[in-house]
Order: sequence, then C-alpha cells, then structure tokens
Amino acid sequence: MEKFERNIYLSNVELNEAKKLFFNEIKESLKFKRTEIVSVYDSLDRITAKPVFAKISSPFFNASAMDGIAVISKKTYGADERSPKRLKINEDFMYIDTGDVIKDPYDAVIMIEDVIPIDDETVEIIKAASPWQHVRPTGEDIVASEMIIPSYHKVTPVDIGAMLSGGILEIEVVRRPKVGIIPTGTEIIEPEDEIAPGKIIDSNSRMFEAMVKNYGGIPLRYKPVSDDYNLIRDKILQAIDENDIVIVNAGSSAGSEDYTSKIINEIGKLIVHGVAIKPGKPAILGNIKGKPIIGIPGYPVSAYIVFEAFVKPLMYEYQAIKETVPIRVEGVLSKRIMSSLKHLEYVRMKLGKVAGKLIATPLNRGAGVTMSLVKADGIAKIPKNVEGIEAGEVIEIELIKDIESINNTIVSIGSHDLIMDIIANMIHERYTDINLSSAHVGSLGGIMAIRRGEAHIAPIHLLDEGTGTYNIEYIKKYLKNKEVSLIKGVKRVQGLMVKKNNPKNITTIKDLTREDVVFVNRQKGSGTRILLDYKLKELNIDSSDIRGYDREMTTHMTVASAVLSETADVGLGILSSAQAMGLDFIPIGEEEYDFAIPSEFLEDEKVKKFIDILKSDDFAEKLMELGGYKIQKSGKIVRINN
Amino acid sequence: MEKFERNIYLSNVELNEAKKLFFNEIKESLKFKRTEIVSVYDSLDRITAKPVFAKISSPFFNASAMDGIAVISKKTYGADERSPKRLKINEDFMYIDTGDVIKDPYDAVIMIEDVIPIDDETVEIIKAASPWQHVRPTGEDIVASEMIIPSYHKVTPVDIGAMLSGGILEIEVVRRPKVGIIPTGTEIIEPEDEIAPGKIIDSNSRMFEAMVKNYGGIPLRYKPVSDDYNLIRDKILQAIDENDIVIVNAGSSAGSEDYTSKIINEIGKLIVHGVAIKPGKPAILGNIKGKPIIGIPGYPVSAYIVFEAFVKPLMYEYQAIKETVPIRVEGVLSKRIMSSLKHLEYVRMKLGKVAGKLIATPLNRGAGVTMSLVKADGIAKIPKNVEGIEAGEVIEIELIKDIESINNTIVSIGSHDLIMDIIANMIHERYTDINLSSAHVGSLGGIMAIRRGEAHIAPIHLLDEGTGTYNIEYIKKYLKNKEVSLIKGVKRVQGLMVKKNNPKNITTIKDLTREDVVFVNRQKGSGTRILLDYKLKELNIDSSDIRGYDREMTTHMTVASAVLSETADVGLGILSSAQAMGLDFIPIGEEEYDFAIPSEFLEDEKVKKFIDILKSDDFAEKLMELGGYKIQKSGKIVRINN
Repeated sequence: MEKFERNIYLSNVELNEAKKLFFNEIKESLKFKRTEIVSVYDSLDRITAKPVFAKISSPFFNASAMDGIAVISKKTYGADERSPKRLKINEDFMYIDTGDVIKDPYDAVIMIEDVIPIDDETVEIIKAASPWQHVRPTGEDIVASEMIIPSYHKVTPVDIGAMLSGGILEIEVVRRPKVGIIPTGTEIIEPEDEIAPGKIIDSNSRMFEAMVKNYGGIPLRYKPVSDDYNLIRDKILQAIDENDIVIVNAGSSAGSEDYTSKIINEIGKLIVHGVAIKPGKPAILGNIKGKPIIGIPGYPVSAYIVFEAFVKPLMYEYQAIKETVPIRVEGVLSKRIMSSLKHLEYVRMKLGKVAGKLIATPLNRGAGVTMSLVKADGIAKIPKNVEGIEAGEVIEIELIKDIESINNTIVSIGSHDLIMDIIANMIHERYTDINLSSAHVGSLGGIMAIRRGEAHIAPIHLLDEGTGTYNIEYIKKYLKNKEVSLIKGVKRVQGLMVKKNNPKNITTIKDLTREDVVFVNRQKGSGTRILLDYKLKELNIDSSDIRGYDREMTTHMTVASAVLSETADVGLGILSSAQAMGLDFIPIGEEEYDFAIPSEFLEDEKVKKFIDILKSDDFAEKLMELGGYKIQKSGKIVRINN
Repeated sequence: MEKFERNIYLSNVELNEAKKLFFNEIKESLKFKRTEIVSVYDSLDRITAKPVFAKISSPFFNASAMDGIAVISKKTYGADERSPKRLKINEDFMYIDTGDVIKDPYDAVIMIEDVIPIDDETVEIIKAASPWQHVRPTGEDIVASEMIIPSYHKVTPVDIGAMLSGGILEIEVVRRPKVGIIPTGTEIIEPEDEIAPGKIIDSNSRMFEAMVKNYGGIPLRYKPVSDDYNLIRDKILQAIDENDIVIVNAGSSAGSEDYTSKIINEIGKLIVHGVAIKPGKPAILGNIKGKPIIGIPGYPVSAYIVFEAFVKPLMYEYQAIKETVPIRVEGVLSKRIMSSLKHLEYVRMKLGKVAGKLIATPLNRGAGVTMSLVKADGIAKIPKNVEGIEAGEVIEIELIKDIESINNTIVSIGSHDLIMDIIANMIHERYTDINLSSAHVGSLGGIMAIRRGEAHIAPIHLLDEGTGTYNIEYIKKYLKNKEVSLIKGVKRVQGLMVKKNNPKNITTIKDLTREDVVFVNRQKGSGTRILLDYKLKELNIDSSDIRGYDREMTTHMTVASAVLSETADVGLGILSSAQAMGLDFIPIGEEEYDFAIPSEFLEDEKVKKFIDILKSDDFAEKLMELGGYKIQKSGKIVRINN
C-alpha cells in the first residue's frame, strides 16, 4: 500500500452548486419521463404521466336521490294539504329506492316520508313535485370527457374511486426509478455473517433500500464487492445497464480503497468529488452513459445525508414529484455548537417542549453515530462561515419527526441509567402518545439544565460530602431560587466493573493506583465521578496516582464497553451495565438515584404518568429482574425549595 | 317490494358517542396486539411490538477514525516542530485507513496530513499523540444491550440501519390488520363490466382497498354480493372468519335492500345504526364474534367519510398507531354555507391564497359527488346546531392537501370552458409546483369574486347589449373602484347542442319555442345565459314560451349531458362540449372568452406563467385539435380601470 496512490479531493463544492452541476450534466436523462401503463386498481401513490379524462358519465343515468316514489311531475301539480292528490301505482307512480333509474314517463321523485299510503295500489300526496326534484342527473358527479386528475399528480384512494366511476381501468404513470445499490469494501460483511474485529456489517445498503422505497423507487441491491478495481468497475457497468440511478457506497474517502472516482473518470465523467457539507464531504457525483452515479461515503450519518442531498432530489425529479419544504421550527439551543468554517454542517437535534419553550439539544456529532439519527427530532443546518452558536440562542431546525410527538415528550436531562430506557418503553407502551427522551450529561449537568429551564426532570445521584446524604443538598445549593421537588427513584449499587474472572484481581478502590491497572473514568459532574472522588478523599488517594483517571466517558455503558474491549482494566459503574456487558462486578456502595423537578411540572399530565410508572408493580418487577436496584418509596414527592 | 319491510334508523348518535360505544364494545379484540416476526430488511413502516435492544456493539472494535498511521502514544511524547520524532514501520507505527482495527500495542492515530514520510520505512512527526486520539472506541455508536427503538414505534430507514449495525436480524412487529371488504347490491357491477342504465360501477371497494393500504392494513376484497339476505349473511360470516375488521358497503340506507343491520342483529350485536354526521349518517357499527363490522353507505363521499371516521381509527388502534392531528388553517368563506341542525356536516373546500388571504370555497355538497373529494384541499366540519355560516366569515379547515401546493395555486373563478382543464394541465406539466384551480360560477359570478378579492383571475364572456362588445363594459361597470386588466383569451363558437342527427330538426333559436322541443338553460349571470337572453330580445321571443327555460345547469358539459341523456332536446353551449358528448352543433355566433384580473396580480409569478401558456404554440395547437376556438392576441394585456 503506497502513499502516492491516495486521491486528493477534487474540490470542496458548495451543496447547491454541486447539485446544479450534477443535474445540469444529466439533464437529458431526466427530460423525458419514462412511463408505463398500470391498472387503476394498482395505481395508489403512482404519479400520472398524462391527465386522466372520464370516458363515461357518473351517474350513467338519471337516478333517484331518495327512497320514495317516482312521479310524473305534471300530474302532481295542485296537490296541497287542503286538496291532496291520489296517485295510482304503475300509472301515476312507482316505488323506487335511492339509485334506481328514473324511466320515462317519470321525471321527479317524492320522498317516502311525504307519501301517505292508502292501499296497495294507491298513495296520497300533499305537495306538488317540481320537474327533476330529487333526481341525480346523469353526470352529476363526473361528466364524460371531464378531466379527473392532471398530469404529474400522485394518485390517492379517492382518485381511484373517481377514475373507476369515470370508466377508466388503466392509466399511464411515470415509471418508478430503479436505483442500483453497490456496497463496496473488503471489510464489509452481510448482517447474517459472523462479526469479528476489522469487519463492518453492511447496514447502509439496507437503509438505502428503505429510502428508495420511501421516495417511490425500486431498489436493486447488489452483494458487497471487495476492494478490487476491476470487480468494482464491472459491477458499476452492470448496475448502470440495469438501473436508472446507481449508488456506490463507501470507497469515497481518500483512503487507499477509493476506486469509485477513478472508475467514473475512466468509463464516464466525474463531475464533483467533495462537497462542502459535513458529514458527507467525500461525496462523488458522476455520469456514466447518461445515467447518474453517486459515490456515497461509508459512515452511516454521511451516507444518510448524501442520499437526502442528492439521490432523493434526483428520484423526485425523475418522477416529476415536487419536494415538499420541510417543516421548520425555532428552538432555543441548550448547548453551544462549534462549527467548521469550511462546510455547511448538519447537526442532529433532540427537541423538547419545556414550559412553552422548544429546547434544542445537539446530539452526538460523529459521522459514524447512527443513533444520533435514530434519536433526532430534527436537523439544524449550520451555514458555512459560521464558527459557532452560543447556548441560549434561537436556531432554526428542520423537523424529521412530527411536532406533536415532540410536544408530548418528557424531557429528561441528567445522569444515565438503564432504567431510563425501561421507563421510556413502559410509558410509551401504556400511553402511546407519550415519549420520554433522555440526554446523558451527568447529574450536575442535569441540575444545570433544570436551572436553565431546559428539562422537565433531571435524574441525579449526588452525594453530599458534608451530610453523607444524596441529592437534596445539591438542589438546595444549585436551585435555590426555583421551586423544586424531588421524585424518589431507586436505590442502586455502584461498584468496580472488571473483566470476566477479574484477571488483575482488583478488589478495592486502592487497587486503582497499582502500576499494572488502567482505569477509565466518568466525566466531571457525573454522580459516579463525585462518588469516586469522595471515596478517594476518604482513602487519601491522590488521583494522579491512577493511570487513566483523565480518560472520561459519559455513560456507564461506554465505561463497561471500554473494559470489555480491553482499553481499560476497570471502571466505576452500576451492576446492570456490568451484567449487560458480561463483566464482573465488585460492589462498593449503594446510592440514591432520584429525579429533580421544578414543582410546577408536577401538575403536567405527562409527568403524572411518569410517576405512575415509578409506583407501578410492573416497574418493581422489572428492577428485580435486572438486579442491583431497590425500590424505595419510588414515585414519592419530596418538596424542597418551596 | 312492500313498504313495511323498510327499516327505520335506530338512532342519530353523535360521532364521538358512536365511536365510544363502538370501541368499548370491541375493546377485548383491540387489547392484545397480535404480533409477528419479520426480517429487519422488510420492516420499513412496521410498528414494533417490543423494544429492540442491540445484541452487539458498533463499532465492534476500536477503529481508526482517520486515514493515517496507528502509533503507540507513549512513543510520540515530546515530539514538536523543533524536535520532531522519527518512527519505524511495524515497530513504532503502521499505515491504516479509516475503519481499520487498532491492534495492540497501538493506542492512537495520527492523521496522514500530519505525517512526513522520510523513506519507505520511516516517518517523522512533529506533534505528540494523546492516548486514543482519532480512535472510534467500541460501542461509540451503539452499545450492546442499549435500546435502539422502543415498542410501538414505526420503523424508519435509519432504524433499519441501526438495528442491523446492532446485530439484529429479525424483530417482533404488530401484525397488519386484515380488512375484509364486501360490496353489496344487485345493481353493482365490476369496473370491467359493460355499464347500462340502472347499473353502478363498484368503485368504493377499490377506494377502500387503497385506504386500507394507506393506513397499514391488508385489504381482502370480495366480489360484489347481490341483495339476498342469505348470500350477504354467508359472506359476512366468511369475512369475519378471514379478517380482523369487516366492511359491508351499501345496503345501509333505509332502502328495501338494507340487510346489513338485520344480519348483524341476528348473528352478532348491532351497536349503532345512524350517526349524526352528513354525509354518512346511515353508518352501521356492530360486533360479530368479537370482531368489528362496519356498514358503510353507498354514496362515495359518505363512504369516504365513514371510513375515515370509524375504520381508520380502528385500524390505528389495532396497530397502536397514534392518529396525527390534521393540520388546521383558517380561511375566509367565499360563499354562504347553510347547514343542518341535526348533523355534524363535512363540507369539502377548495382553498386558494389570494393577496395574502386564504379563500375557502365550498365544493358540491352532494354525497354522490366524488369529484368534490378529488378536488378538495380541505374539509370544514360544521358543528351540529349551527344553521349556517355567512360569506366573509373566517372558518377552520382541516387540510387534506399540503398548504404549499395550495399557496402555489392560481385561483380562477368564473365561466366554465374545457380550455381551463387544458391550461391547468399544461401549466402543471411545465411547472410542476404550480396549479390552476377553476370554480365554475358563470361570468358574472367571476366578476363578483374579483370584486370580493377571492380570485386571481375570472374567465368571462359577457356581451354588452349597448355596444355589442365583450367583457370590457362589464369590468368598467362592476369593478370601477379596482385597478383591473383583461388578459385576452380565445374566440369561441357558441351554438345549439342537439342530439346526434338532430332528430327534432332544430335549426335556429326560434325553434326553442316549439311545443315539441324541451330546452335546458344555463344559470343567470353566465355569459351563455346573457347571450341567449340577448338573442331572444333581438328576435322578440318571450322566454315563457320556451319549455325548460327555468331548468338551469351550471356548465356547458352538464347541459350537453342533459341533452345526451334525453331529459332535454337542446341547450346552448360550445362546440368542444357538444363534440365531447357526441352531439350535433348548430353555430349561432362567436364570442370572446377572456380573463379579468386585478392589475396587481399581473406581477405574480404564477400569473406570468399562466400568460406564457396562453401565448405558447403548444396552446394554439391544442385549440386547433379541439375545434371551435380561435387564438386572437391570446395572452395580451388590456389595461382597463387604471
């Protein structure tokens, strides 16, 4: 592997410019819409290629609009309450139901309610009928030759009904674009294969398949192709023949496996390599045999963003679908965002409505963090040339979830515990319209979020050195100007998490200072860190004697994960995390994990349901199953600053 | 057919009450969600039945986040610009690409941009590496045992990617509800069958199929069943066995074919028969063997509304999907609505934004008028106990189309002509984001709409008796306080439309007074009516001598349709309508069909495009094809009141 083989990106083209260059280059292939004939029965959500004109009128005949009798209007003239008229069956009238044909010589309908039966053959009426009253004339709904729906219209269920009533059985629609998806990379394995270090599960191509379906196309996924120039080139040539649009995934970084841009250059035209967006900058845009080809970076978030930025508009253009403008909302930024001056950056945001304000919290910015997309409620686009945005500023966010579900979300910011996932799930199962979103910033971070009015609740476990009690002293100290209560949560065991069978024989906090022991720490302000520092003080241990004291993780699970993957020997955390990762656990003490809450929110219906869950038997049972927890007055309200 | 067989509705239950009674009765069948296992690949849009927890971490190993070299951090300490350090390949460093495994003893990555190659085996660095820099730790994205998505969550493409990365191949989802659809009625034919008077094409069941698919269910449509008690009962029993929800269409009016309610009463429980909504009041709600059955009226608009009101929420409850609140907007009512005191009424509305105001025009109120749904942008729900709403009042409308496409619509109110459909289609084909909506209220109605500020343009053809000229005098007279222009449209031929081969030998206006001739008229204020009255005056004919002079239709096509269906012998109209209906045509004169427009709208981008179409060769060609039209300065602007 030689250094000089590496590519240098051709450019750092701005998004809109890149799109323009790309669409301009392939405009011939987009100009004429390819069409096909489909049965109206199967036309739901298809895009019409031609206007649809009715072949027949509906109703097809003059029909009764009522249950009643058909009459000859002339013969009813003069009838009123004082001088009723009698009519003879099959001579002056006939019984009819709604929808029946009005036949000669009848020309009007009298409702059954206005008909007085005299005998089997005679009725009496007390009001004249005007000609064509209660008759649905031919073509009342649809007149033959009338346009039912125009071109480039997405067919709805109602349209299907109208077309069939208008005598239409088949229509010409725009063909769904076929999108070929080629995963590349020698390290790529299928989800069914055994995972091993160095291997990456191909999940992007399946995400693409689903996105293609969502945007009206037909995905054709190929098996992953190894990093071999000829293999990739052959697959691209095949895919170009078999599809309307081709996507090549990965192989678009400047890494040594990057062949896509070279292949496009060889067999087609490379239009853009490198777009000024982040994540997603290594995107490649090309044209092979008049068909668009897009090289998409391998990181899942980059993959998603590049697909949305280029493949979606391409698919829409292909189908003559107008892109709907995303719904935009304004939110108060809860945490400073630093941004690059060189790129338009897409920051995934978690949103929550707290006391009438929409609070926007940036999620993990890593291009590899799929979960930031799974959890995102919206995306903020930070323009190029903006260096950063301060906490408290109002920013615009494009929604990807609906605003109603955001408004129905309990916003929890604070310490991390597995039970937050469990409560989130229990609450959503019981009350489908309510969600619980948890941001993990540590206990003190949670207290600060409450102070800034950005969270409904803050899960905390903060030991006060002076009193030896949990949580209450911190609320008194940091939230003194606010009416705040504590919702009692659970007791839980903290301990040292070590590798299975404890190979380094770690048994006490003192062992952390051993030369052969590498520790992994939690971030400052987390309850676990405060507990550790409290214990170190108690034992008179200098933190600089602990190797790894400076390496900080933000959740129990990432600490456990560091121990499991052997980048550390030991970390402090909770039993459930150790168990989840198959680690051994040495208990060092019990702590109280509760919820700080502004007292005003105790009246919030969502919060009441949260408390109901804490008090429920189901919750107690779940904790028993997990181990390491104790229910103790869970759900009880303790008023503090009131 | 005997009168005493008819049913009387059991009740006129209010919508919410009916829903409550119904859902309460069948709650057992909704309580436990039926589930199934699906491959994650096929899980798009499915609803999770259980939370999904990751089985493995992603990344599965400590991976390089950069292209560059893996180093042992300790060995880099002390490197700076003044004292660079040299590293030996395979001893102090190795080349790696993004995503490669960081293996022992390496614990950090230096970006390739910061590496100075000395020779094939040596590099120089000028900055120390801190431990684990540029390394994606195991579980950075997903930590094993972490919850990826909760229960009752609709799976997105991104979720699919995250689940596969978390080692999940299959998930448990809520089963799609199977919805059985039984069309009934002896008069019902399949769309493929030959239409004849008295026959009705079954279009509702196909609309239902599409609605079921839209709401996540699996439709099972049965062939239409004749009005036979035993046949319908057997089909219902079969459908109840084969489905989760059963719909019986038609047979729910008080007509003599109404068996559905009797059958439910016999083999299950009839809960509600008659709901206080309009259209849709004959709805039937029942329970057979614990499964919900809904009798839906036959008129297409009633059918749609009853499905939306009962079947959709039922399907959503079945799948634990929360119904999204429809988007509501406020519009200015352009036309008085009279409403029933006994029912909640659903009025279909056409919306358009004119000079910043959202104008809401009620569409045809008939339960049989499918096209009112096809054309509707939204629905206004007029509460029970409200007798009417005056023009100019602000009303709330639930959107069924997106507001953006409404904002991009040119609102035309005025005279009807086939060319309006043609222009609508040409404009939408050329500029997919622009629509033209036409309301047909006659020429004078159009002038009034312009006066009230409710339309962008008003197509008119108004002959001034004094000057013998078209349109300009009317604008001067009725719009004198407004700056208004005229966009020249087309010349078109008006004439008498008579049956094929003119069996009554009608040749002049004078023939309308013949004893054996029945005429069908246009409404007052329409240009055609004004033309007729002008001709009658010229010829000294008394309108009371014309049979049918009082029967008014609102479009050329409905007049032509009346002649075709033999409820009249002759009507006045345009050549294109006569041709569309296969009628003979006797020309009586040429008129000018132009567009009145407030001058301010001439600057509107949408209107400019409308004018471009009028001026285009494509448009001229289309008119040639149609016949009966002449282009004459089409698209030219004539300023009038300025």
